[in-house]
Amino acid sequence: MTEGPARERRRLLVASNRGPVGFRVADGGNLVSSRGGGGLVTALGGLARHHDLTWVCHALGDGDVEASRQAGDAAFDEMSRDGARYRLRFVGAPDATYELYYNTISNPLLWFLHHRLYGFGETPTIDRGTYAAWRAYEQVNRRVAEAIDAEATQMCASDAEDDDDPPVVIVHDYQLFLVPGMVRERQPDLFLQFFLHIPFPGFGAWRALPRPWCRQVCESLLACEIVGFQTRRDVSNFLRTCEQLLGAEVDYDSQRVRYLGATTQARAYPISVAVDEFRDHVQSPTVERYRDRIRAMRPEGGKLIVRVDRTDPSKNIVRGYRAYELLLHEHPELHGEVAMFCQLDPSRQDVPEYSRYLERIQATAERLNATFGTSTWTPLHVNLDSNFLAGVAGYCEYDVLYVNPVADGMNLVSKEGPLVNERDGVVVLSDQAGSFNELGPYVTAINPFDVAQQADALYAALTMDTEQRVARAQMLRQQVQVYDVRRWMDDQLDEIERITEGAPLPLQ
Amino acid sequence: MTEGPARERRRLLVASNRGPVGFRVADGGNLVSSRGGGGLVTALGGLARHHDLTWVCHALGDGDVEASRQAGDAAFDEMSRDGARYRLRFVGAPDATYELYYNTISNPLLWFLHHRLYGFGETPTIDRGTYAAWRAYEQVNRRVAEAIDAEATQMCASDAEDDDDPPVVIVHDYQLFLVPGMVRERQPDLFLQFFLHIPFPGFGAWRALPRPWCRQVCESLLACEIVGFQTRRDVSNFLRTCEQLLGAEVDYDSQRVRYLGATTQARAYPISVAVDEFRDHVQSPTVERYRDRIRAMRPEGGKLIVRVDRTDPSKNIVRGYRAYELLLHEHPELHGEVAMFCQLDPSRQDVPEYSRYLERIQATAERLNATFGTSTWTPLHVNLDSNFLAGVAGYCEYDVLYVNPVADGMNLVSKEGPLVNERDGVVVLSDQAGSFNELGPYVTAINPFDVAQQADALYAALTMDTEQRVARAQMLRQQVQVYDVRRWMDDQLDEIERITEGAPLPLQ
Repeated sequence: MTEGPARERRRLLVASNRGPVGFRVADGGNLVSSRGGGGLVTALGGLARHHDLTWVCHALGDGDVEASRQAGDAAFDEMSRDGARYRLRFVGAPDATYELYYNTISNPLLWFLHHRLYGFGETPTIDRGTYAAWRAYEQVNRRVAEAIDAEATQMCASDAEDDDDPPVVIVHDYQLFLVPGMVRERQPDLFLQFFLHIPFPGFGAWRALPRPWCRQVCESLLACEIVGFQTRRDVSNFLRTCEQLLGAEVDYDSQRVRYLGATTQARAYPISVAVDEFRDHVQSPTVERYRDRIRAMRPEGGKLIVRVDRTDPSKNIVRGYRAYELLLHEHPELHGEVAMFCQLDPSRQDVPEYSRYLERIQATAERLNATFGTSTWTPLHVNLDSNFLAGVAGYCEYDVLYVNPVADGMNLVSKEGPLVNERDGVVVLSDQAGSFNELGPYVTAINPFDVAQQADALYAALTMDTEQRVARAQMLRQQVQVYDVRRWMDDQLDEIERITEGAPLPLQ
Repeated sequence: MTEGPARERRRLLVASNRGPVGFRVADGGNLVSSRGGGGLVTALGGLARHHDLTWVCHALGDGDVEASRQAGDAAFDEMSRDGARYRLRFVGAPDATYELYYNTISNPLLWFLHHRLYGFGETPTIDRGTYAAWRAYEQVNRRVAEAIDAEATQMCASDAEDDDDPPVVIVHDYQLFLVPGMVRERQPDLFLQFFLHIPFPGFGAWRALPRPWCRQVCESLLACEIVGFQTRRDVSNFLRTCEQLLGAEVDYDSQRVRYLGATTQARAYPISVAVDEFRDHVQSPTVERYRDRIRAMRPEGGKLIVRVDRTDPSKNIVRGYRAYELLLHEHPELHGEVAMFCQLDPSRQDVPEYSRYLERIQATAERLNATFGTSTWTPLHVNLDSNFLAGVAGYCEYDVLYVNPVADGMNLVSKEGPLVNERDGVVVLSDQAGSFNELGPYVTAINPFDVAQQADALYAALTMDTEQRVARAQMLRQQVQVYDVRRWMDDQLDEIERITEGAPLPLQ
């Protein structure tokens, strides 16, 4: 990863539901830490090298709680993957409160509304229980805000140099919607940024929530100097919602909202992959083992379609299977010549909507193999577990990468795959993925609702001539390399500086 | 109904899926006609008194087909309810084609998308069958367009006077989305208006359809001089969709779209009730009989909640029952003091989504009565049939009228009820009904997704003091009387004249 432009050292406070590291209590009673991977952790961890970073997140298990207790429930020193020091602060909440915050409000309620997964005729229903859960959501958000407040106060007090710039707080994602507003009440001078990883829905989706909750969310976001989104569509939905819900004054060209005397800048910062770190995974012997197995699924001289997803209704796995079924039905010449490998991470199985969806996924897969499979050919291979490296192996081996979400903030599969694929594979990508804005010209576009069109697109991808495949694969790789996650972070830091200095931002 | 302002006699062509009159072949082989009721038929029928009216609609059964055949498959003379002459033209289509047009594309696909009834994770799915159905939809629309073309040509040819103004074509509703564009290709000089009775959804809903179909719909609407909607929210969704989907040039203040050299004016015309005609129903002895029965449901000295709906998921009957359950659960003092009467018209039972919804309605009702009912008190009475006059009787008798749709173009129940109610009843109305824009200040507002808030609202409505009830009932009645369906039609004719003359329209 190349270094970004030199910039001032700043005091940064990052908050997210899940942190960059988790602890468990080992057999001997010792604490063992394991550092998470993923683009976000890498990008934010990279901040530790150049800035004074404190990361606030939830204590997610006994190990985290114990680590926090040993630190006197205050921040303690931690090390990022690449060896830079930062401070970590765990926030606790009673299990029952966290459960309501996470498994009732955040998922499914907010996630489903943001991804348009509710049919409004019957879902969602707000009842007394939902109100209780919203109070838990407020409470957990408040604890995070209090931790940020405490850390920011200490940062300012302990800073020996006379730092003119206030600390910058960056809050992540829909689980923490209310944090910026709660921080602002306590700290009028901090620089506040929020980044939303999932789509911001049109105003119509918000009507399913009690109006006061919608106002709380929007007013909290408007406590920020900058609210970052994945795409310009999200920006535009946010601006319109502020206008319609709060009567805020909106300038659509400059993407600014004026509300109660303050100005908030909305911006699109498309997230991406930690390129070098991600490529390192391919060297792992485990990946090599998985690749052998996956190669064996590809018919001799034939083609392999790969998908890598969580089993979330937004990922659209059932329609994907139906499109593949249709392809096999209409193209008997492909029987024995093509196979599909799916690496599926069973997601949120304690939420009924998710376990039901997984059942339908499995039933459809069984039907497909029963209909088309022979003694020598299995058309669909499903690996159902949380196995990151098997997914990486799938990325290396695909001839067609099939990515068909009905809604997706960004979709990193469509960026990770082309980065490490070694077969000049074709990406078949939903026009509803956030990444479609960047990758659209180099992929085979699909409408995720239309299984007929998806079957046609899969056929086109499977039969694309080599020259086209090579050219597109190259362009995709290049796009992801240049616009990597470091760039995503750098763009945000640049614009934080510009706004701090009162400089104008370029039009998006 | 008062007479509108004097205006020029014009040649009008109205098109709608269902016409103002239906025929059946009686035992002796004679044709027997029956004229439909309802606001739209009354309003449009009223046009016959002042204008040269031809009405184009579908032949919906053997009687209609026979009537059309006897007229040589051309237009023939008919009489409106109030005795004015107009011409009627039936359009035929093979049953299988009509079935796809009506029961696959119009309902559920378009209806569900416009009312946001699909959870996008699994519904809708577009497949080869849907494409075939879309071709049937195009075909039926084309037949209507051809009939309009033929009638317009004849109108112009047979007109003795030298009429400068071109005939005006008014096309109704989502079943006929493609008609304006198809007419325009054949008749460049007609004045075209379209009126949409259901909500026009945000751009997000359209993404579930193949992009070419969305373009077809929008381009067809933009072939009109005026596109009318129920509310300003629909206007705004339409304008934005034209901008985002077609890149059309939109002026949001004047509500005008410029596209391919032509200008289309979008306007909100909230539909209403034919006041005098509707009040006449109350005099019917049948209504009096039903009122006796409904009165017997109201506990001695207690209150009666009434709802009148089709069993459509958009009407939100299940959540309504759940709110009533919650009310009874939290207010034991209401047991034996309140009852609910529901007049439910079983809707579109040949569409699986509708029959499943009806099953859930019935299961919830049974659970409610099993939980709370006693030997002397039935909390919930359901009349499940298509019985217009029983609904009118319910309107007369309600203490609380409960109207909680999750989405509704207008919702005439909320206008008809207050017009004939004789108990100064309170209207509990969803803020998602189109009528909420007009009636909001005089109703008890509810969020249709929130059963907790609906239970509270029902309680507030049941316990509202007399002065408030009387004042609100009076205001509601007055609002509906003044803004009746005649006014709705007059506003449209006025603006058609203004646009014809190139005069500006007032801002909405």
